[in-house]
Amino acid sequence: MSLAPGATIGILGGGQLGRMIALAAADLGLRAHVYAPEADQPAFDVAAAFTCAAYGDEDALARFAAAVDVVTYEFENVPEATAALLARLKPVRPGPSALAAAQDRLVEKRFLEGLGAPVAPFADAPDETALREALARFGGHGILKTRRLGYDGKGQVRLRPGDDPRAALDAIEGAPAILEALVPFAREISVVAARGIDGAFAAWDPGENEHADHVLSLTRVPARTTPATSAAAVALARRILDALDCVGVMGVELFVVGRGADERLVVNEIAPRVHNSGHWTDPGAVTSQFEQHVRAICGWPLGSTARRGRIEMRNLLGDGALGWRDALATPDAHLRLYGKRDRAPGRKMGHVTRIFPEV
Amino acid sequence: MSLAPGATIGILGGGQLGRMIALAAADLGLRAHVYAPEADQPAFDVAAAFTCAAYGDEDALARFAAAVDVVTYEFENVPEATAALLARLKPVRPGPSALAAAQDRLVEKRFLEGLGAPVAPFADAPDETALREALARFGGHGILKTRRLGYDGKGQVRLRPGDDPRAALDAIEGAPAILEALVPFAREISVVAARGIDGAFAAWDPGENEHADHVLSLTRVPARTTPATSAAAVALARRILDALDCVGVMGVELFVVGRGADERLVVNEIAPRVHNSGHWTDPGAVTSQFEQHVRAICGWPLGSTARRGRIEMRNLLGDGALGWRDALATPDAHLRLYGKRDRAPGRKMGHVTRIFPEV
Repeated sequence: MSLAPGATIGILGGGQLGRMIALAAADLGLRAHVYAPEADQPAFDVAAAFTCAAYGDEDALARFAAAVDVVTYEFENVPEATAALLARLKPVRPGPSALAAAQDRLVEKRFLEGLGAPVAPFADAPDETALREALARFGGHGILKTRRLGYDGKGQVRLRPGDDPRAALDAIEGAPAILEALVPFAREISVVAARGIDGAFAAWDPGENEHADHVLSLTRVPARTTPATSAAAVALARRILDALDCVGVMGVELFVVGRGADERLVVNEIAPRVHNSGHWTDPGAVTSQFEQHVRAICGWPLGSTARRGRIEMRNLLGDGALGWRDALATPDAHLRLYGKRDRAPGRKMGHVTRIFPEV
Repeated sequence: MSLAPGATIGILGGGQLGRMIALAAADLGLRAHVYAPEADQPAFDVAAAFTCAAYGDEDALARFAAAVDVVTYEFENVPEATAALLARLKPVRPGPSALAAAQDRLVEKRFLEGLGAPVAPFADAPDETALREALARFGGHGILKTRRLGYDGKGQVRLRPGDDPRAALDAIEGAPAILEALVPFAREISVVAARGIDGAFAAWDPGENEHADHVLSLTRVPARTTPATSAAAVALARRILDALDCVGVMGVELFVVGRGADERLVVNEIAPRVHNSGHWTDPGAVTSQFEQHVRAICGWPLGSTARRGRIEMRNLLGDGALGWRDALATPDAHLRLYGKRDRAPGRKMGHVTRIFPEV
């Protein structure tokens, strides 16, 4: 089903990602209706309509579905029941398989493994016994990660030989978890890609990511990998989006292990949504990830992913937002601020994209 | 006075220009509050708040002023009393001199003449006697134009030898008018430029404009003029913005008379606002006219006006909006639609900007 301009896009989640999707929708003559449980959400300010209600509020969800033509989301942790209720009433894009694969780290790893995609060794760790066994197999090193609802390093515990597995399980409050072996990676890269309703696929060039306190701080494009590694990363992303019948934009995070001719890839995680490491595409690429996502979920053709130059995208985290004035005074810098009222350490307040001539 | 992110920009007028200013403000972490008398305005859909009230509603205006940090407008025909009331409460940018000069064709011509800017011969035509005298002086040819509220060819009557001046005055319902001599121009160009609160000036390269039924249909950048003519046009714009102490973006329309080394310029009209012939700057330039306008009225530094290539911006007028699907399928085309519900012949529904490699 293809929409026409004037249609309304429903967006679950009112943060900066929802805000930037709504802005891209407006550029294309579409209306945005944002649904989020929290008050004062950044996306509310730019949406034609918003609903402030819980994700479990079935009446509010039904009214929301009636008011929109397609539903999408800015985060992969949409409760299953919410997605299922909405999917009975309106198309939800990306669809249920993408959500299911991205919500649970164990399901995600098994999905990727089944696809033949390289992943870090992992083990289900439902209890202390299983965790001890897995740790023994991984030489005492590993990262305990909750299966659900982790992001930006939250819900993760690093384990070293001699550490108490019991304490690690307590730290994640006994939530279902997996143990992942450490990957001695040289770089972290990501592929942001889109798939259309007709199966068309378009990826931006892979970006190289740096983190500070587990939060993305910098994306450089192109990533410093061999052309073969970049091509392999994009090919992996394509297999993932195809397998999930994904309609929309998706981020695929990968580790690059080794260097030069020895480079190999390990898929870290996938997110069926616009991705922080793709923020540079506005205006660093001909089509931004936000416009691309809107095109895809509307059933429209995908746009060109050509880059406008060499890119550096820096997140403005917490008090980093005070750098807005410097960014405005830098001729090749593009400032984006999310309109969040309160700064907190590590909170994503905005980002700055710089476009340099290709070397 | 310089604003900080999180501030609210008040915009008078809710059409596509107000909408695109609001969208640019959102990118920079600002809130937009749109004020317009008509219901269902395109800008309402993307604004954090809107007021639907008459321009003469003093209570509504006072509440609007209290809710915003700076006031701007998408059209130069803001009633004088409205602007004066708001200016007592909050900064109005561009200010009263820019509005006064642009609202009345007679004041505008005299202002330009006083500045030494070349204008077409003109005469005040308050009545039939004056009109007949002026026509005699101009050889029977001329364009009768209402002093106020004309746009897109409205409020204009072309006069030829033998035409009845009385009928022409009747056609404009006896409104105060001027007679302008015809300018045998080779091309129409425009300079879109911005001036900061500190007097800084930045212009985009002049564009060349084509009209259909008096409505802009196409802008090409750069305009096909000599470098000297382009430089002279930008210099004229700078004198005009300086003289008006303009803070914000302004469009200056000019005729190019003659060709090659014989080219000379005639200023046609000025508009203290973002301008249709500057729509290509999003994303055809590093800084769009909308972002630039927001930067200026916030007291922020102006951004780079560098072009990303050779530009063609085509308006989607009336049923031309049905071309949206073709635009989406064209790799180098950027579609913008204004979210207007009803198409009407000649109505501006959107535009498409194409960026080609520089030749």
